[in-house]
Amino acid sequence: MSLALPSAAPRTLPWLTEARATLTREITIVDEFGVRRPIAIPAERPLTVYVDKRELVTLMTLGAMPELLVLGYLRNQRLIEQVDEIESITVDWDVAAAAVKTRSGISDIESRTARRVVTTGCGQGTVFGELMGHLGGVQLPNAQNARIRQGTLVGMLELMRQQNSIHRKAGSVHGCALFRGAEMLMFVEDVGRHNAIDTIAGWMALHGVTGEDKTFYTTGRLTSEMVMKSAQMGVPIIVSRNGVTAMGHELATQLGMTLFGRASNRHFLCYTGFERFDSEPEPQRAAVHVVSA
Amino acid sequence: MSLALPSAAPRTLPWLTEARATLTREITIVDEFGVRRPIAIPAERPLTVYVDKRELVTLMTLGAMPELLVLGYLRNQRLIEQVDEIESITVDWDVAAAAVKTRSGISDIESRTARRVVTTGCGQGTVFGELMGHLGGVQLPNAQNARIRQGTLVGMLELMRQQNSIHRKAGSVHGCALFRGAEMLMFVEDVGRHNAIDTIAGWMALHGVTGEDKTFYTTGRLTSEMVMKSAQMGVPIIVSRNGVTAMGHELATQLGMTLFGRASNRHFLCYTGFERFDSEPEPQRAAVHVVSA
Repeated sequence: MSLALPSAAPRTLPWLTEARATLTREITIVDEFGVRRPIAIPAERPLTVYVDKRELVTLMTLGAMPELLVLGYLRNQRLIEQVDEIESITVDWDVAAAAVKTRSGISDIESRTARRVVTTGCGQGTVFGELMGHLGGVQLPNAQNARIRQGTLVGMLELMRQQNSIHRKAGSVHGCALFRGAEMLMFVEDVGRHNAIDTIAGWMALHGVTGEDKTFYTTGRLTSEMVMKSAQMGVPIIVSRNGVTAMGHELATQLGMTLFGRASNRHFLCYTGFERFDSEPEPQRAAVHVVSA
Repeated sequence: MSLALPSAAPRTLPWLTEARATLTREITIVDEFGVRRPIAIPAERPLTVYVDKRELVTLMTLGAMPELLVLGYLRNQRLIEQVDEIESITVDWDVAAAAVKTRSGISDIESRTARRVVTTGCGQGTVFGELMGHLGGVQLPNAQNARIRQGTLVGMLELMRQQNSIHRKAGSVHGCALFRGAEMLMFVEDVGRHNAIDTIAGWMALHGVTGEDKTFYTTGRLTSEMVMKSAQMGVPIIVSRNGVTAMGHELATQLGMTLFGRASNRHFLCYTGFERFDSEPEPQRAAVHVVSA
């Protein structure tokens, strides 16, 4: 992973622990042949987030990158705008806690986290009420400046196919990756796919990486929440191995984003935002697409 | 679907609307061949639940059975114990609202819904803080009285394979079914799988159906939240087309529940609770399982 960081004004970065945890667990199963054998399953652990000693939320996570998860969660919930608002994030798995210390507090945190919306998404199903309100301010690059070629998309899918992963070893996790062109900048997995995208948001915030020339890949469905998070992070194109929900489709269309779903190997569907997509059609196979021609 | 309801003391049932909504939407996509064609995607709509005119939560739902969803949600969140606490549930899609009228209020609703846990699950990612506390009181039948034969399991999977569904038409939804032996009593789909299981909880509560001789089938992962909900509903066996998370496995093992995953056609893994499972091994195929023998 090489990454030229944008030259920007010096920022005061938060101090983060590097808490590590075992990502898989071995269990014994019985299969349809009556055979007992060991398999690996993904770890899953609670992580209670305290902001300036006040309990905020408990996230259930694989635990791969907990500090970036917490940073991205705070960012995606719009509880912070800039990383320099955070002095430190200290994760201690022994007590399943992430202690966030801010430089000058989060104003109005009580009222800003009071409203619950229970969403469709895997994982972080809680988006606090303010989030929808902020989307009016989202600025995505226009279709001339942020596009994707079919060849680039197919290259991304090939890279994802080769990616070594917890999913391959143990299943039952969602993966999320950030691409610039066909170059993968960051890949993370979590038991909830919203954790995965939040972790990428934390990584972007920490490194001052912006979204306008990036593409998200996710193994999860394209729900409204995934679309919202991506829009907040300024990433105009999302690719999913999975499908789309009606609200995800509607929101992306309104925001001028481009969504690809059912994407694996050379196959995909572009659901919306065709104007960012440079189609380089595969040769049609006989018979297969007669009904849809 | 035939169902002999248990003879019990007469109960005062809530009055429910029968709000209907369109479950799929047609959109136009572009595929890898450059062909534009229509496909169906599942509907997804917000439903804001008001209890005695106080806003409780907004659920994102497919909208198949909204009244049962709301009833089951209240039941699974332990905000009500008995259905007769509810006088009526009125769903109006024009205003995306479910108005719940209780007979004598829900005591202490403010404090009982104050704590958030963001879970791994698809869909209803919010379990209010009290829920974990109630699991101490869960009583599941012992392994002699609630078991499953491999033949019954395979019969269930065959029935699920044949089931006509939104998933088949439009993808991107989770299905959940309640079985007694190999007989399917109830099947529902939703954009979030926790909505699906809550809808079944609502149906069970409404009809006074208990869980001890039932099995759940879900297309979603076996997370701690799915296990908790199933335990609350008294259902000791869960079958999933998908995998298991570590917390789901741990909790089920502690509660003495039986979990099957990766279950489709004649294939499955029994993850835990072998004592409820009457294995009828498939004949081993040559070579395939040599390493695990």
